Amino acid sequence: MSEITIVEIAKRCGVGVSTVSRAINNHSDINPETKKRIMDVIKETGYIPNNSARNLKRTDAKCIAVLVKGITNSFFAPMIEVVEQEVEERKYALVMRHVEAYEDEVDVALELEKEKRLRGIIFLGGSARHSADKIKQLRVPVVFTTIGSDIADDLSRNEYSTVSIDDAKESFKMVEHLISLGHKDIAIMTEGSDTPSIVRLRLTGYLEALKKHGIKVNEKLIRPVDKKIYTLQNGYDTTRALIESGEKFTALYCISDVLAVGALRAFADAGIRVPEDVSVAGYDGQELSRYSVPRLTTIKQPADEIAKEATKLLFNIIDKVSDHRHIVFPGELIQGESAKKI
Amino acid sequence: MSEITIVEIAKRCGVGVSTVSRAINNHSDINPETKKRIMDVIKETGYIPNNSARNLKRTDAKCIAVLVKGITNSFFAPMIEVVEQEVEERKYALVMRHVEAYEDEVDVALELEKEKRLRGIIFLGGSARHSADKIKQLRVPVVFTTIGSDIADDLSRNEYSTVSIDDAKESFKMVEHLISLGHKDIAIMTEGSDTPSIVRLRLTGYLEALKKHGIKVNEKLIRPVDKKIYTLQNGYDTTRALIESGEKFTALYCISDVLAVGALRAFADAGIRVPEDVSVAGYDGQELSRYSVPRLTTIKQPADEIAKEATKLLFNIIDKVSDHRHIVFPGELIQGESAKKI
Repeated sequence: MSEITIVEIAKRCGVGVSTVSRAINNHSDINPETKKRIMDVIKETGYIPNNSARNLKRTDAKCIAVLVKGITNSFFAPMIEVVEQEVEERKYALVMRHVEAYEDEVDVALELEKEKRLRGIIFLGGSARHSADKIKQLRVPVVFTTIGSDIADDLSRNEYSTVSIDDAKESFKMVEHLISLGHKDIAIMTEGSDTPSIVRLRLTGYLEALKKHGIKVNEKLIRPVDKKIYTLQNGYDTTRALIESGEKFTALYCISDVLAVGALRAFADAGIRVPEDVSVAGYDGQELSRYSVPRLTTIKQPADEIAKEATKLLFNIIDKVSDHRHIVFPGELIQGESAKKI
Repeated sequence: MSEITIVEIAKRCGVGVSTVSRAINNHSDINPETKKRIMDVIKETGYIPNNSARNLKRTDAKCIAVLVKGITNSFFAPMIEVVEQEVEERKYALVMRHVEAYEDEVDVALELEKEKRLRGIIFLGGSARHSADKIKQLRVPVVFTTIGSDIADDLSRNEYSTVSIDDAKESFKMVEHLISLGHKDIAIMTEGSDTPSIVRLRLTGYLEALKKHGIKVNEKLIRPVDKKIYTLQNGYDTTRALIESGEKFTALYCISDVLAVGALRAFADAGIRVPEDVSVAGYDGQELSRYSVPRLTTIKQPADEIAKEATKLLFNIIDKVSDHRHIVFPGELIQGESAKKI
């Protein structure tokens, strides 16, 4: 029989995990009857409460580290919650570490390994290129998420795992969708630097879609974002500059939803209607994309599934029931309200 | 002379911190001339690169813990960055810990104290009420941010610090602003539970403003949010239910910007124009409030200053140059486009 978790207790009682937790922790804001029902089920099942704080008490608790590059990127927050839940179910402790923009996440991982209880590492975001030597120095298995490409020359794909979507292919899909709506002058808001990254793959998809459909690339419609690619302000500023350039375009494809929401605001300020005057597309399928006015046409990454699969894969490698693997999930083209036929 | 930091190196070179870091870490994506200039200044000043990863190498590095309740709350992300920078300048290491919704953050703090290098704790978010006994067990000083009220009976205010705005007063200010625009039927979207919290203080401000202006409270216009008070979906769902209730209102005041942005989307779907048909107000003054269509009328919390002051205060207490203090910042009424005169 598999071990009982707080999630299962919650299911059996027909309540949320937080309610079970309030019962366990003697919080006052819980209905006494609900509490009794929960405590009865806990007694029945022999469940032992096991939250992260309690885990830390056991000095022998094994742990998993999650290294997050770019904490302001709201794309990762729901993924962290999924990883936490999976790690907790396995009774491991979770160590979360924010990697600064100027830090190399593999350097940070090498430091974290001094923690003897560490059994594995999951990377959320970060660079798509690393030093093979450094990766080889890591003694625990690592899983990169959201990065599907080879991360180093001279490094066998048997020495690390990746769980991601195919960014070039999904980006191609979005641009082909815009072309199918009649757009030819499609601007793209993308990363400025030449560093290999998932964002570069999205640009590759854009270029390939134009090529396939015989549309000549207009370099002036490739708009690099100055700095961070996940801020509303950069989406806003870059769109304003595009509008002011006078270059003709009928669609703007932004390689993140956050940039696209900034773009919507810039168009509104310029009196340009979306989608009547210009179509806008995003990428990621974050929650925000479903609440903007208009809702975004975007590529939805299955972020929860990626996080869940990455954690499961890591534990399988730790348990030696799996070798390193490279798992690619399909993205989903979401047709919102921000792009229309011309 | 004060010690040279990476921030000062960046200033002297006229570049960003990340550029200095790229120079130090031998990254390839940096202009060779810029790199040379930076390395020259580093040599001149005798600056010793000191990022968090390096800090960890020194097993004697002292550290500060930041406990964040609700990582999906984008309000805290910029605050974390400010704390990180301040902590780094002091050459301390930063330990960040996400506190689950069902965990008590002081319990988590007590666990973290087993880390011998810990010198102080900053709480971002969380409950406004704690057990005096538990707080007294903490051996390092603690600073609560965004919570300005007394956090425990039987606990002297000399045993903990708070840095915050006055939530009741700021909320009063917002509701009085709506009243000054001619609104009387003002709905409020607020937290469901009766737990003492900063959100309760915002409700108090609402009730006091109505009272002062002789407006009778309509209980049906006090709309509790089911679960999390910082999700777009809950803002959307609660607004839909309010619209469907048929209750008359001319303004909706949401106690967080995230809820308000969800409300904007719900009104758009119902064909109700903001602000022509109904006024909407938020609270927090997050970045998103400046990019929604329409821009939000909101109360801006000086989040950066709160984070900066909290960190400075904590270090002053650690250095024994300050006792515990309770610092209250003013909030700012931002008149966006979402509320108008009727």
